[in-house]
Order: sequence, then structure tokens, then C-alpha cells
Amino acid sequence: MKFIKTPVKGMCDMLPSDMRLREHVLGMIKKTYGAYGFMQIETPVMEHIENLTSNQGGDNEKLIFKVMKRGADLARALAKENGELADNGLRYDLTLPLSRYYANNKEKLPTPFKAMQLGNVWRADNPQKGRFRQFTQCDIDILGDNSTLAEIELITATAAMLTEIFAEINISDFTIHINDRQLLSAVALQAGFKEEEIGSVLISLDKCDKIGLDGIEKELLDNGYTQSAVEKYMAVYRNVKPGMEIETFCALIAEDFLPKQAAQQLSDIVSCVRPMLASGVKIVFDPTLVRGMGYYTGPIFEISMDGYNFSIAGGGRYDKMIGKFSGQEVPACGFSIGFERIVTVLKDHMEEGFKLENGAVAYLIDKRVPQQRRVEVLTKARELRENGQIVTVLPMSKNMKHQIELLEAEGYTQFEKIYE
Amino acid sequence: MKFIKTPVKGMCDMLPSDMRLREHVLGMIKKTYGAYGFMQIETPVMEHIENLTSNQGGDNEKLIFKVMKRGADLARALAKENGELADNGLRYDLTLPLSRYYANNKEKLPTPFKAMQLGNVWRADNPQKGRFRQFTQCDIDILGDNSTLAEIELITATAAMLTEIFAEINISDFTIHINDRQLLSAVALQAGFKEEEIGSVLISLDKCDKIGLDGIEKELLDNGYTQSAVEKYMAVYRNVKPGMEIETFCALIAEDFLPKQAAQQLSDIVSCVRPMLASGVKIVFDPTLVRGMGYYTGPIFEISMDGYNFSIAGGGRYDKMIGKFSGQEVPACGFSIGFERIVTVLKDHMEEGFKLENGAVAYLIDKRVPQQRRVEVLTKARELRENGQIVTVLPMSKNMKHQIELLEAEGYTQFEKIYE
Repeated sequence: MKFIKTPVKGMCDMLPSDMRLREHVLGMIKKTYGAYGFMQIETPVMEHIENLTSNQGGDNEKLIFKVMKRGADLARALAKENGELADNGLRYDLTLPLSRYYANNKEKLPTPFKAMQLGNVWRADNPQKGRFRQFTQCDIDILGDNSTLAEIELITATAAMLTEIFAEINISDFTIHINDRQLLSAVALQAGFKEEEIGSVLISLDKCDKIGLDGIEKELLDNGYTQSAVEKYMAVYRNVKPGMEIETFCALIAEDFLPKQAAQQLSDIVSCVRPMLASGVKIVFDPTLVRGMGYYTGPIFEISMDGYNFSIAGGGRYDKMIGKFSGQEVPACGFSIGFERIVTVLKDHMEEGFKLENGAVAYLIDKRVPQQRRVEVLTKARELRENGQIVTVLPMSKNMKHQIELLEAEGYTQFEKIYE
Repeated sequence: MKFIKTPVKGMCDMLPSDMRLREHVLGMIKKTYGAYGFMQIETPVMEHIENLTSNQGGDNEKLIFKVMKRGADLARALAKENGELADNGLRYDLTLPLSRYYANNKEKLPTPFKAMQLGNVWRADNPQKGRFRQFTQCDIDILGDNSTLAEIELITATAAMLTEIFAEINISDFTIHINDRQLLSAVALQAGFKEEEIGSVLISLDKCDKIGLDGIEKELLDNGYTQSAVEKYMAVYRNVKPGMEIETFCALIAEDFLPKQAAQQLSDIVSCVRPMLASGVKIVFDPTLVRGMGYYTGPIFEISMDGYNFSIAGGGRYDKMIGKFSGQEVPACGFSIGFERIVTVLKDHMEEGFKLENGAVAYLIDKRVPQQRRVEVLTKARELRENGQIVTVLPMSKNMKHQIELLEAEGYTQFEKIYE
């Protein structure tokens, strides 16, 4: 028999101090989102392989952990050439399962439905620093609301949640970036790109932060697009100034191409969100914001921490996705928080691990202590525990100094040694 | 494209009222076990297939959901005849992962280590009423303590936890059954069974509740054991009286076979636990209690609800298991709570679903309401939310009556309609 002590590649064993921090953050997320009327739901971690491989998940579909068929089903699949050996797979995100869930349970849920999901997802990615093959996602989604109230609630709730969590480490400056897929499309169409080329053009624009406008121009030309389309396209983005208003940007788009309603709604979202934000939190229109997933259909948004070069939450409207399951279109809009990033930033700001609350008591009992005395100690411990205090009762170790050091590292501060 | 709306066979979509109940129960479990000094930890849901199929899991090993190798590894495995196609599998319990975890992280943990795990496990069982292929287990374990204090802490913490949870539905009567694997072995050896036959003999004795003593006798004879051994074996159990003391039972075992230390420790556990129990909770010695898992080495225990014919928690000492991972024996003792059963019993006692706390507010905004008024409503909502109140802001539906009914079903009690 060969036993392997380490966890599966790219996945983590959580130590008690890791779990305390994670539970603390999860508690704050549940509380804030709960106060905003989001209701927690859960789907199984496994989904039908047909659903997972239906081209909704982009590149994530290449990273699925597939679950093998069993028994006779497996035997039959193996007997066939190129038989499908998997019947299920582990979910790679929480959006696809939510779409299935809503199609399955719509009648039992309020309309619009405000969902909160906290759960693990799995991707067979090449593990890198800070990236794992099992990680927690926290998503909120509003289903069945085609008004801007959905975006406003999602963004204000998430801004409130981040403000509360990061207040503990004195970080309060965040920027909410917002744009709209329809504006992105309009600029591309006006430049002369075809509808089916937009996806590929946006992949280039999305690299703005990394390669700059000149880099984008070069990449588009390298990809074989015409000089005239690329020049017309870049001319718009070369006119973008920091802090530009939506209206000013829209003036760069010809009347025939301008999606007026989308532009109006984007202004509406910004106007309603702005007065709701805590000091330190800004909302800015960002005409080069793209966001990867192809399923977005309207406003898209991201939150970054000022001074850090990564976003900590992102989302947008995806009105076409749920209809693919249910056959009936349902407007939908969601926000996904980078839970693992939040936890990493918090951990990096703590000198020691995340300890037990102050006041935890440890009774250390020598093995010679008679039964009656042990019962007395246990009774005293029970009283404290019933009052909500954390109390552990342990046999005294031979190396008591080391035993106490390790308990102190977890946060125990009071030690009672019982010798007789 | 073929989309499937229902969840994977044997698994459940959790509705908001299900989740509220589950989160409520999980919260009580975390709080009570936390107060008893158990520290929450977590392992990945996937384990190495080698560990899962190492004969530690009994029949559960037949029910593993296997995760397929990927890329070149999979191609290589498929090219071989009978190549192993899986590299990982989903955990079927929390005990095997805990053993691996402790072997991997021992140096960073206090000794003894009191672990709490709340997590899903997966078994490709034939789904039946109330049995699922994904379900939540709650385990507490004490690792590195060979004294009876481990059993005492596990049992008193679990009794306190159950008392607290079931107080909400006015159930307070529980029975803790306790026995010891060494006593079970002693009776079998004294009757003349061989060491290697004990496992099979105990499988028969375990059916006591279902087939009675005559049934057990018949089954043992049918299995080919000698008349004399079976008679000698049954004679002991025919002498068992309800409420029998450990000492009285031990008098039925000859001096040469009696495990004196085990008997003494069992008495010690009962004496220390009894004064800790809430009224309505009993601890009784049950000489026919077996518990299925082969890995138990000492005391075993179960808690049943009076008037229900199932146990709601079970556990025991398994001193040999962790050594198989680490090469170094570590005494261990654990208790696993039937979380899904607890939730089912609570749900059965509730006339309506588990609702939001009283006082949740819904603002329903007509689409004609101007932006400025919307901001006023959102500002008011934010104030209430910051005070911890649950507030949702929604667009008014065309069918507002139905909208309000569904919100009331979730627990909303206050509705503010904004028309202008």
C-alpha cells in the first residue's frame, strides 16, 4: 500500500488559522449581502458533462476535471471507440450552475431573484503562486430584472462589503470601473469590423493595460485586419482622457452606431451608485474595460484596489445565457468576488496568523488527577462554554512548554494547570 | 446543444429556505464545537486515488466518484490494457482525508489536536429517500490523545450540541450508547472464534436490532461456524439485561480473555460523562453495539433520539489508522454527526420553510419613479442595511400580488411601494 501525505496537486490543506480567517471573511460577506436581500443558494459541485462542455465557459472548458462513468456505463463507453468516459464534471464556475438552477427552480423563487453563492470551483490549470486548482468563488446575481436597479444593487452591495472587510486593515480606497459591451461593439462596428470579428478585436483591446494602444494597433494589424479599420478604431481610443464622462465618449461614436439606451442606462447607473459610496470609493467610466467572458451583453464592471494592479471583483449583464437552459430568455446580471485574493491580501497584512478571540482558556490535566477532580474541572469548563467562552480540556503533555507555545500560537491566553 | 435542467442524479439544488436552515444548523455546530476547543480545518474534496482505494474505507471504496486523468497522462493510460484512468477521486468520508492531513501538517498543530470538519462527501450509492450522492458530514476528532479525556470531550460536546439544536423543536431526549471493540473481541475469542473470524462474527452481531439473537445464532451457524462456538458466544449475549452495568457484563468474560484496562476505561468514560449531560440525555452501556467500520480499536459510541429508530451521531477510537500514512502511530478518536438527518428532522417539524428573520423590508419601485427619488430610497435602504436589517430594493413587477406572496414566503414582512 502506498499512501501519499500531501494533498492533490494544486490544492491546499487549510490550517486552523487559515480557516478562522476564511470563515471570518465569509461571515462578513454573508452578512452584508444578506442585508442587501441576496439569498444564499447552493448547487451540487458536479454538473452534467453535456452542460459543462456546451461552449458557455470559454477556455475554462479545457480545464474541467471530468468524473468517470461507473459500472456497466463505463464498460460500454470503453468498448466503443472514442466513447465518452465521463458523465459528470466538477463545476469550473458558479454562473453556469446558476443558470441551470434557475431554469430548474424558477417557479419557487421570487422575481426578480437575488442569489448569493459561496462555493468551491475546480480548474485543472497549471498551478502558480496564488492560483489553485480548487478555490472559493463568491457570486451574487440578480435574475429577472432588466432594469438598471440590478446593476446598482450589485455594485453598491459589493462596494459596501469590500469597504467593511478592508476597514480591518485600514484599506479604504477602491475604484469601480464600468463600461458597456454595446459601446465596445459600436466602436468596432463603426470602424468597419464585422459583427463576427468583434470578439477577436476585444481580445486585443483587453490587453490595453499590458501593451498600450500602440501594442493593440500592432496586434490588430498582425491579425490581418485592414489598415483603415484599425486606424478608425484606434482613433476613438486615442481620444480617451482619464476621467472622461460617458457623454463625451459617446460624442466620438456616430449617431447611426451609438446605442443610445445603453449609454443612457450606463449614465443612470453611475449617477445612482456614486452617492451610495463610502469615502475612498470612486466609480469611473472606463471605455477600454472589456472583461473576458463572451457571454456579457450589457454593462460590465470591475473593482480594483488603488495601489494594487489586480481587480478584486468583476461582473456584468448576461441576458442571453439562462434562455439556453430554459428556452425562455431571462435578464441576468452578476458580480463575482475574488475571495482567494481578498484572503491573500488580508493575510499579507497580518503579522501573525488569524488567532482565536482573546480569552480562550486551556485546562491542562495531569494524568494522576483523580476522576472526581476531573469531573469538577469539566463542570467548570461546561459553565464557561455555555456562556460562549472557548475552553479546551487537554491531558498535560510531557513537553508542556511546547504544548503551551502551540496553543498560544492559535490564540489561547489563559492556562490552568491541574496537577492533583 | 443539449442542456439538462435537473441536477446530477442523487444530488440536490438547495433553495433559499433550505440554505437558511442548513446555515443556521452549521452555525450552531460551529459555535458549540468551537466553544469546546475544536478547530475547524478543511481538506480538498479530491484525494489521490491511491489513498482512497487503500482498503481503509470498507464498502465505501466501491462507491468512489473517480476523477479522470487529463491530457498526455490520460492518453498513456488509455493506450495500456487495464491502465488506471483516474488519478484522483472525490472523498467518501472525512476520516481518511483527516488522517492524511494530520500526517502532512502535524508539526504545525497543537498536541493533542482537536479538529472540526464540516464538508461534503460523495458516494455513488443508489439514491433512496433521504439518501444523497452528495451530502454534508460534520466530524470532530481528537488526535494524539490516548486518554479517556478524548472520548469524554467528544461525547459531552456532541450531546451539548444536539441538546441545543433540538431544543428549538422541543426535543430533548437522547440516548448515548457506548461499547468497546476490545470487549466485543474478547467475547468472540472466549467462545472459540479465531482472531481473523471476529470481523465476520461482528457483522452478524451488528444485526441484533433487526434479526434478534435467534437470527444472529442462525446466521452464524449458516456461515459454517461450529455449534459449540456459536452456543458459547450466544450464551453471553442472552445474559444481557437492559441497563446492565459494565462490571456485570464483564463478569461473563473469563479472566484470561477480559481486557481489564479497556473495561476500566469504559467505566471511567461513563462516570465522567454522566454528570455533564443535560436532563433528558442518558448514557448507557450497550454490549451489542458494533458500528460498521473495521478501523475502530477501542471505545465506540452512538447517539439515538428516543422514539426514532436511527442514530444521529456515531464514532469511536481508531488508534491504528494515522500510522498508516505517517509511519508513526497516533492515537485518534472521532465523532461524526448525521447532519442531513438533523436537517431532515428539523424540517419535518416545521410547518413552513425556514424563513428570514422577522422584519425584513422590501422596497418595490415603479419604473416611472425618477432617478432622484430612487436615490432617496436607496439611501434610506443603505441606512437600514448598515444597521443590520435585511432590505431588498426591487423593480415592481406587473403582477405585484404574486411578487409579494413569494417574498412573504421567504420571510419578508414589510413592503414599501414607491410609485412616484
